[in-house]
Amino acid sequence: MIPERLERQVQFILEADKLKEIFRQTVCTQSRRAENDAEHSWHLCLAVIVLAEHANSAGLDVLRVLRMLIVHDLVEIDAGDTFAYDTARMADQHAREARAAERIFGLLPDDQAREFRALWDEFEDKRTPESRFATAIDRFQPMLLNCRTEGAAWRRHGVTEDRVIARNAAVAEGSAAIWEYARRMVRAAVEEGHLDPAPGR
Amino acid sequence: MIPERLERQVQFILEADKLKEIFRQTVCTQSRRAENDAEHSWHLCLAVIVLAEHANSAGLDVLRVLRMLIVHDLVEIDAGDTFAYDTARMADQHAREARAAERIFGLLPDDQAREFRALWDEFEDKRTPESRFATAIDRFQPMLLNCRTEGAAWRRHGVTEDRVIARNAAVAEGSAAIWEYARRMVRAAVEEGHLDPAPGR
Repeated sequence: MIPERLERQVQFILEADKLKEIFRQTVCTQSRRAENDAEHSWHLCLAVIVLAEHANSAGLDVLRVLRMLIVHDLVEIDAGDTFAYDTARMADQHAREARAAERIFGLLPDDQAREFRALWDEFEDKRTPESRFATAIDRFQPMLLNCRTEGAAWRRHGVTEDRVIARNAAVAEGSAAIWEYARRMVRAAVEEGHLDPAPGR
Repeated sequence: MIPERLERQVQFILEADKLKEIFRQTVCTQSRRAENDAEHSWHLCLAVIVLAEHANSAGLDVLRVLRMLIVHDLVEIDAGDTFAYDTARMADQHAREARAAERIFGLLPDDQAREFRALWDEFEDKRTPESRFATAIDRFQPMLLNCRTEGAAWRRHGVTEDRVIARNAAVAEGSAAIWEYARRMVRAAVEEGHLDPAPGR
């Protein structure tokens, strides 16, 4: 007979399959269709193992960064994706996501439910070197895809350079080098006409 | 000015975005559209952090398992997905993928190109506890999605129970417990009429 623990774990993995249907505003560089949360999460993991050397903190626990990023968007299965520049929906975002975390991580055996919830809380709190680096990558990747797709999501929502810089300044807390790269990249997008400068400039 | 090393790393991350357009035979449980390699890779990472306790080897290096799975399908950007039951295309699969590994990992700075290539070689060789567990998860996840979608990919290709068992027996080398679960799940799929038994049975 199948141990109940393994059965609960498998049911959680099946529930997580729904993340493949949660679409973001960012588009993929090839087909230009909307990226979903599952492939976004993978892309962040890849970026972490490539860019970890640029973290501000030496001795980063890369495994914890990966664990955080693997689970960080699961709450969106219930709460939906909140666009980074949608200030109205961002108001109750954390409350919606916290309810989702209760339900979704609650599918796991109790010890793992607590462990995964703690990972998500750590990611949300952004106080450890690991969560700051995870956040840096989570903010950098959409900027990168936007720059490579002529500012597709920015243009569609009328986002301007000043808002991109303000929204993503947290990258600097995880990696000064990646933030420096991002600022130059965003400036180039403005110069190439893919992103509007601040209104009135 | 941007260091050349960081620029190469970012170009690699952008190239990897193409993995989101490589579609597999397995379908997602909700929309029933084909799953792509990027979201598949994420789903494997999630399964690893949930199921690592079931590995045959105690003291598994989970970070190395994750690193392997994050990069294991990148070669398919050039080589395409080879369906697990397509014995004709499987004949030259490794040669096609090895050429792809040269090009794709070669985009990275030299030290990382070697490191990522070594991860992919380790995954392909299936001799270490980490690569065996990674393989177990890589085989288990499509079986799980197939069982949850009434055998969608199996039915479309006329795959029978004996072939599913033969193809996926490597799961046992990574995790006896997951293989036991998988065998029961596949048997149930036959009993429910979602997978045909071996011809003549």
